[in-house]
Amino acid sequence: MNIPILHNGIANKIENLLSQMTLEEKVGQMTLIDASVVTVGEEQKADNPIDQAKLEEAIVNRHVGAILNTPYTPHNKAQSVETWRKIISSIQKTSGKSRLKIPVLYGIDAIHGATYIKNAVLFPQAINMAATFNPELSTREGEITAREIRTAGLQWNFYPVMDIGRQPLWPRLWETYGEDVHLAAVLGTAYIKGHQGDDFSAPDKASTCLKHYVGYSFPINGKDRTPAWIGERMLREYFLPEFEVGVKAGSPTVMVNSGEVDGIPGHANYHYLTTILRGELDFQGFTVSDWEDIKRLYTRDKLAATPREAVKIAVMAGVDMSMVPFDFSFYDLLIDLVKSGEVPISRIDEAVSRILTVKYQAGLFEAKPHSFYEESPVQLAEAAETNRQAARESIVLAKNANHILPLKKSARILVTGPTANLLSVMNGGWTITWQGDDESLYPKDKLTVLEALQQKSTGKVTYVGGKYFDEKINVQKAVEEAKNHDIILLCLGEKPYTETIGNINSLALDQAQINLAQAMIATQKPVILLMLGGRPRIISEIAEQSAGVILGFLPGMEGGGAIADILYGYYNPNGKLPISYPRHTNGITPYDYKPIESFELNTYNPLYPFGHGLSYTTFQTSGLKVEKDKITRGENINIAVNVKNTGSFKGQETVLLYLNDVAASVSRPNKQLKAFKKVDLDPGQDENLSFTLTPHDLSFIGVDLKRIVEPGEFKVMVGKETVNFSVTR
Amino acid sequence: MNIPILHNGIANKIENLLSQMTLEEKVGQMTLIDASVVTVGEEQKADNPIDQAKLEEAIVNRHVGAILNTPYTPHNKAQSVETWRKIISSIQKTSGKSRLKIPVLYGIDAIHGATYIKNAVLFPQAINMAATFNPELSTREGEITAREIRTAGLQWNFYPVMDIGRQPLWPRLWETYGEDVHLAAVLGTAYIKGHQGDDFSAPDKASTCLKHYVGYSFPINGKDRTPAWIGERMLREYFLPEFEVGVKAGSPTVMVNSGEVDGIPGHANYHYLTTILRGELDFQGFTVSDWEDIKRLYTRDKLAATPREAVKIAVMAGVDMSMVPFDFSFYDLLIDLVKSGEVPISRIDEAVSRILTVKYQAGLFEAKPHSFYEESPVQLAEAAETNRQAARESIVLAKNANHILPLKKSARILVTGPTANLLSVMNGGWTITWQGDDESLYPKDKLTVLEALQQKSTGKVTYVGGKYFDEKINVQKAVEEAKNHDIILLCLGEKPYTETIGNINSLALDQAQINLAQAMIATQKPVILLMLGGRPRIISEIAEQSAGVILGFLPGMEGGGAIADILYGYYNPNGKLPISYPRHTNGITPYDYKPIESFELNTYNPLYPFGHGLSYTTFQTSGLKVEKDKITRGENINIAVNVKNTGSFKGQETVLLYLNDVAASVSRPNKQLKAFKKVDLDPGQDENLSFTLTPHDLSFIGVDLKRIVEPGEFKVMVGKETVNFSVTR
Repeated sequence: MNIPILHNGIANKIENLLSQMTLEEKVGQMTLIDASVVTVGEEQKADNPIDQAKLEEAIVNRHVGAILNTPYTPHNKAQSVETWRKIISSIQKTSGKSRLKIPVLYGIDAIHGATYIKNAVLFPQAINMAATFNPELSTREGEITAREIRTAGLQWNFYPVMDIGRQPLWPRLWETYGEDVHLAAVLGTAYIKGHQGDDFSAPDKASTCLKHYVGYSFPINGKDRTPAWIGERMLREYFLPEFEVGVKAGSPTVMVNSGEVDGIPGHANYHYLTTILRGELDFQGFTVSDWEDIKRLYTRDKLAATPREAVKIAVMAGVDMSMVPFDFSFYDLLIDLVKSGEVPISRIDEAVSRILTVKYQAGLFEAKPHSFYEESPVQLAEAAETNRQAARESIVLAKNANHILPLKKSARILVTGPTANLLSVMNGGWTITWQGDDESLYPKDKLTVLEALQQKSTGKVTYVGGKYFDEKINVQKAVEEAKNHDIILLCLGEKPYTETIGNINSLALDQAQINLAQAMIATQKPVILLMLGGRPRIISEIAEQSAGVILGFLPGMEGGGAIADILYGYYNPNGKLPISYPRHTNGITPYDYKPIESFELNTYNPLYPFGHGLSYTTFQTSGLKVEKDKITRGENINIAVNVKNTGSFKGQETVLLYLNDVAASVSRPNKQLKAFKKVDLDPGQDENLSFTLTPHDLSFIGVDLKRIVEPGEFKVMVGKETVNFSVTR
Repeated sequence: MNIPILHNGIANKIENLLSQMTLEEKVGQMTLIDASVVTVGEEQKADNPIDQAKLEEAIVNRHVGAILNTPYTPHNKAQSVETWRKIISSIQKTSGKSRLKIPVLYGIDAIHGATYIKNAVLFPQAINMAATFNPELSTREGEITAREIRTAGLQWNFYPVMDIGRQPLWPRLWETYGEDVHLAAVLGTAYIKGHQGDDFSAPDKASTCLKHYVGYSFPINGKDRTPAWIGERMLREYFLPEFEVGVKAGSPTVMVNSGEVDGIPGHANYHYLTTILRGELDFQGFTVSDWEDIKRLYTRDKLAATPREAVKIAVMAGVDMSMVPFDFSFYDLLIDLVKSGEVPISRIDEAVSRILTVKYQAGLFEAKPHSFYEESPVQLAEAAETNRQAARESIVLAKNANHILPLKKSARILVTGPTANLLSVMNGGWTITWQGDDESLYPKDKLTVLEALQQKSTGKVTYVGGKYFDEKINVQKAVEEAKNHDIILLCLGEKPYTETIGNINSLALDQAQINLAQAMIATQKPVILLMLGGRPRIISEIAEQSAGVILGFLPGMEGGGAIADILYGYYNPNGKLPISYPRHTNGITPYDYKPIESFELNTYNPLYPFGHGLSYTTFQTSGLKVEKDKITRGENINIAVNVKNTGSFKGQETVLLYLNDVAASVSRPNKQLKAFKKVDLDPGQDENLSFTLTPHDLSFIGVDLKRIVEPGEFKVMVGKETVNFSVTR
């Protein structure tokens, strides 16, 4: 194990600091505790939640290097900027009292914006950001999130999720950028770029954390934190590339997979944490455990016979920092393990030097007290506008029979269903609270779908529904009301959730929603189905009988307005599905299936395929061509195609370029997305697009688990056209 | 590559024969063709289906070494013993005309008995044989099947299926011995023992084939012949052990997985076919491709750019014989590959010597013309009785509220549902035809459930249903009839299928069956639900509202009588579930789940767990103890427990012994079946059972993919008792 190679002359400083540190001070740096360990209880709410005595015990006596989360676990919720500033100032002041004055790193889950800061800009969730196919929006989200957490004095964001979303049952699917490797890589790195800039010590930037390394998102039975069965070849093909690009994009921290892959818990996997992450990906930052996960190697996984052995296993596997988070057991046990010689001091030095390096890179050693970023009114206004635009671009119009949409402003609309009049159903988990389900805490100035429609309509908008998600809807009343309306907006979906709380046993929609849908369809009034929620629930029969289908997923705080804009045609929809929307509860197959899956019977038969999304105008691609029909291995290839707005509305279109390696030594997907471009075209306008594929785009993980490009034929697909080229040795 | 080490002095004979063979004669031995290549077309049905000219072309000119299947693909069906004898005699005679007179090996799918021989004894399918927990019955099935195919002159059975059944959607689940590794290993090897005896050249024995090597049964989306995502550790833990014991049990042939594992098609996987199967498992027999699968490396998997390359890849990966099956392309291409030096002759010699060895072992070189086995009337009667007993022991009584069962013989029973009056629904695929769905070809003397009830009842048995599975049932009539009956026997389930034909998109029961069930339940008459079919379909709500539930799966030709025997109490049921019967369409979890799956929320919540099965009496186990509470690594441990019939009926009980390795370096299942014993006890009678666990029973696949026993604590579980012991270094 080596001390990482450091840039910016930090290396000497780290070495110098490390040489002055006691074992206890070193192990303290590897300890990450929950805010509740250093704050008062919720019932004793104070102007500043910090309990100074507890804080000094943690920082001065236990040398704790990092704190996370908003106070009052398990009743944690967003705090005001003022409260955050008091908390951070107390921590800064207290770390100044420690012997070596090493600053504390404060980490937060700022998913889809600054989750735990009151009145933060809360964006569409990742599944929606992916549906925009617009990396610029992801960069802007990163910029705004970093700025907002720095406003509160926070410096470390446990985000982005670089897991790939290929298991629709998984209750964190919506935290991913969908099922495609390329799309997730582009969106995730765009986010990091915005969040960190070139230098995350800048006053409006902050460090990111790639999670959850690696293979977390693919539990075989769909439930969170259950075993994933991923062989190393598929792991390298689908799950590792996102982390590879995230590391290259400069994210300085990596959070470890809470589950297990091929029988080995993420926190015990030396092969993935050290051999691959350090050895192959050359990751120089530090790894952090997920919630309590080192302990759980003992309490849950029975990988260790004692809590002490659990610490040894995790640290030796390559975990640098433990999210303990409620006590100092990790600190005590690791000190003992080093003293007894079971964990070498070199491993401690390695971990601590990485942690200190990130603190230096974050500018924490230079930070003056109270150096909080101040967002300007202009920035706040721009951020709100960016969020509105992201919401609009993230919504997928999946069906529009006989141009039923857009609606006339004067249309008489019956709005019904459990997702029509709640903000929480558009935001999902990690919104103000962990589960995002406390509607009473949501901002009063944001609009639900119903409220946005009421605001924009010049006709009658009637609501038949309840005040909360599970409230029984008066179906008979809705049927009666339907008679007096032109159209029914049927709002179905899921309530907010994340992690194990969101586990389900079936992708089927719940029966109450099916009953409501059947009653609405039976009225013979045209039905527009709007789905909101983090996962695709099965709607095949309802969608078949609806005139229009809008897939909203989790469009964030501006979702209501965005959906109304699309319904009325104020905005021309352009979101595209970043996942395959399943038709049935079983037989889940992503779009990049293998040829074996379409040989005797086509097993790819989703309700809506990956990349699907309608517009109020039409687009056509044509003239697909490759610059050369033969290249040598190692060469790039340029590809051109024309895209034209052939309809009568201005609109945006994302052109998707797929590739197929015609024959290879490992079976290759029928097609894989390798590039995309989004264009904005007036009616009749066209644009020539050019794409460059690199050797990496042509590569795959070979039989010996190495990335290779094999000579032979490749097929490029854009729209209905295909063109081939070949690679020679 | 080495010529295998041969026993019985065969080695010299093989070497001698090989030295006389031309390249063409060698490659011919590696060629397996379908019977249709050498027979007349179905429309020209002849007394002897062999087309002598075609046969001579195959055997004399193309040197073909093996033939499979019943004639007339794709309209193949069971043939009479007489027809088979003519076919085999023609083949024997014709191979006698070839230069070296090498006999032809004839292979057949004799699943659950001699599928393709008219009037053969057709047993419960494997999932049912597993439910008997009676290896003696499996041995008897093997004996009888071998005898019956030898009666027809066939010598090679493509059976048993050693795949493990952990994916309930998979349309071949019922061809497996269920989800547990130990149970499948015991049942599979018991079958081989019966089928091969000590010497499969004996007149009533025949060679078996272990299939489908390896990982075939676990397609990630549940559809047949689609990718399996199995890492090597899980593959070695769950899928490889059955093949390991099958090889040790002496099965001389192995059929290759038609799908792909971790991106590598089974037929191209050198690591599994050669490094592991030959190198580690020391398999001395030959491997055979599945149907057309070498071609499909080109046509389907695109692993090869040409059919020629496909042959090279498969042969070099370790496939010894190609089930081509419709032409001589493999023969032509492989000859060319050897001539051009792309495939070394040493690889051909290796494959051919293995094939010839098996032919010698099978006694084919000594066989006189017309040496067909003659079954005696006593044997036939015994076989029928064995089949009846297997059917009875294979049926699981899952629910029996308020002792509603057994029924009085005088009970007035309304029988309804699509599986009530068909033999095919009790037999499944590979019955007389490939799909097993041609009811008109089923024997007239076997009883459906309805017919068996009618035969045994002294009351009124009324049937409301159709003549075939998909016929719409008159629900209103059933509701009316229910009024005049004491009880409703509701017969639901699946029609027969196998392979891709049986793919489904949801484990949900079809809506027509649900509607019928709801109507029957609404009558308030007690409902006994009988499920028949190869897979567990979701019945949770119906079962909840039924008084009794019988899970019949595929009990074979004697299933009707067996079910009636159980309903009336002529037989006390003792079958136990060899799979976990799922409660919901998703979230499938086998019984040997990891502790991580029961940590925050228990994800193992099947409708009926593995091992579940009621009796008309009750049993209690007690006094569980280990001989020593500490053993050294490498020692066996003896365990004792008492089992007592505490009820008032004579009955059989299977005592299941589970083990848990309390802490280990790879996460271990919460429990694993390691031993079981079935006892027959009178009311009040008890028996002391003893079990011996070997070091292998205590072992698992470690981090470095090697099988190890780790010192530490182990927990033994039988019934409600647990006892611990520890293993020291």
